[in-house]
Amino acid sequence: MLTVTTQGYERKGYAMSTDDRLSLVLFSGTDDKLQAAAVLTVGAAAMARPVDVFLQYWALDAFRADRILKDHGVSPEAGPEGERAMRDQGKTHWSDLFRQAKDLGEVRIQACADSMEMFHITTDDLDPMVDGVWGVASFFMEADGPVTFI
Amino acid sequence: MLTVTTQGYERKGYAMSTDDRLSLVLFSGTDDKLQAAAVLTVGAAAMARPVDVFLQYWALDAFRADRILKDHGVSPEAGPEGERAMRDQGKTHWSDLFRQAKDLGEVRIQACADSMEMFHITTDDLDPMVDGVWGVASFFMEADGPVTFI
Amino acid sequence: MLTVTTQGYERKGYAMSTDDRLSLVLFSGTDDKLQAAAVLTVGAAAMARPVDVFLQYWALDAFRADRILKDHGVSPEAGPEGERAMRDQGKTHWSDLFRQAKDLGEVRIQACADSMEMFHITTDDLDPMVDGVWGVASFFMEADGPVTFI
Repeated sequence: MLTVTTQGYERKGYAMSTDDRLSLVLFSGTDDKLQAAAVLTVGAAAMARPVDVFLQYWALDAFRADRILKDHGVSPEAGPEGERAMRDQGKTHWSDLFRQAKDLGEVRIQACADSMEMFHITTDDLDPMVDGVWGVASFFMEADGPVTFI
Repeated sequence: MLTVTTQGYERKGYAMSTDDRLSLVLFSGTDDKLQAAAVLTVGAAAMARPVDVFLQYWALDAFRADRILKDHGVSPEAGPEGERAMRDQGKTHWSDLFRQAKDLGEVRIQACADSMEMFHITTDDLDPMVDGVWGVASFFMEADGPVTFI
Repeated sequence: MLTVTTQGYERKGYAMSTDDRLSLVLFSGTDDKLQAAAVLTVGAAAMARPVDVFLQYWALDAFRADRILKDHGVSPEAGPEGERAMRDQGKTHWSDLFRQAKDLGEVRIQACADSMEMFHITTDDLDPMVDGVWGVASFFMEADGPVTFI
C-alpha cells in the first residue's frame, strides 16, 4: 500500500519518477557498443532506475537467438589492437549482462516492429530475454522522458 | 528545511516543462541512422513532443539540396546483407519523414554554424526543410534539457 | 500574460533542478566525434550547465597523454572529402576545447575503470585534464538524470 502510494506520487511528479528512467534506443550491433550498453543497463538497474531498451536495426539483428553469441565485430575505430584488448579482457558477455540487469531491476527489452519487418523475423527468432515488440508510438508512450541513442 | 521545500518546488516545475522536448544532435550521415532519427522525430512529434534537430558534420552534408536523395551509405556493421534488407524494405525516405514530422508537430531543423563553415555552404545549399542556422550557444539556449546524440 | 507567467515558472523550476546536468558517456574515439563532444561540452559549460564526461573504450584511448594530439581518424562516412574539409577548417583541437570547458564551468572528466583495465593503463598514462577514475556505479551516482552517448 505504501509502495503504491509512493509510486503514484512519484509518477505524478514526473521529475521524481520517469526522469530517472533510462530509455535506450539500441541501434548499433557491434560487440563493443553492445557491451557498453549492457554495462550502462546493469548500472542503471543497480541504482533502481527503470530501463527500457528498444532494439532497432543492427542491434536487433544481434539479439537473434542463433547469432547472439557470435562475433558481431567492433567499431572500425577500435583497430586490431583495440579489438584484441577488448576480447582479451574476458568480461561477461553483453547478453549475460542484459540478463543480469533484468534479474536486478525493472528492465524491459523490446524489439522495434519496423526493424522486425525489415529482417523478416518474428519473436521466435529472438533471444527469450526480449520481452516483446513495440512500434515507435509504443516506445514514446513509455519513454516520455530523455532518450539515449547508442 | 527551506532547501527541501525548494527542491520539491523545483522538481515539480521540472516535470512540467522542457523535459518532453527531444533535442537531437544529428551528427551521423548514413541512411540507416538518418532513417532511425527520422522515425524517432515523427514518433515524438506524433506524441506532441517538441523536437529540435541540430544538424552537424555528416548529417548536415546529407541535408544538402542536391544530395539529400542520393545514397549516403549505411553503418559499416550493416554488412551487405543488412544493407540489402534495409533498402528492400522500401520505407518512406528519411527526408520525407522529417517533412511529415514538421507538418505534424513542433519540429525545428537547424544547421550548425560551425559545420556550415566547414563545408563552405550557405542556407541556399540546404534542403528547404532546414529552418535556419544555429550556433552551439543558440542550440543550448533552446535545448536546455536532455540531449540525444545520433 | 498567463503563458509568460507559466513559462517563467517552468523555466525557473527546470533550470534549477538536476536535470540540466549533461552526462556524456564518451565512447567514440574518432576526431570528428571528439570534436563534436568537445563543442557540446564547451557550449553547455558556457550556459552554466554542469557536465560530466565519462570516458570509455576508444574515447579513453584517445585521452592517453602520449596520443591525445595524434590523428585519431574520422567516422568512415566522412569520406576523404569530408575528412579534408574537417582538417582544413583548422578549429581549436578538441583537447583544448575540453580544457577550456573545464576553465569555464563545472566540468568533470572521468575515466571508466573497466576501460582502464581493458587497456592496462593507469591515470599516469592519461592527459592531466582527466580528473579521476569512476566505476559505472559511481557514474550513475553522479549522473542521476539523462545520459547522452557519443
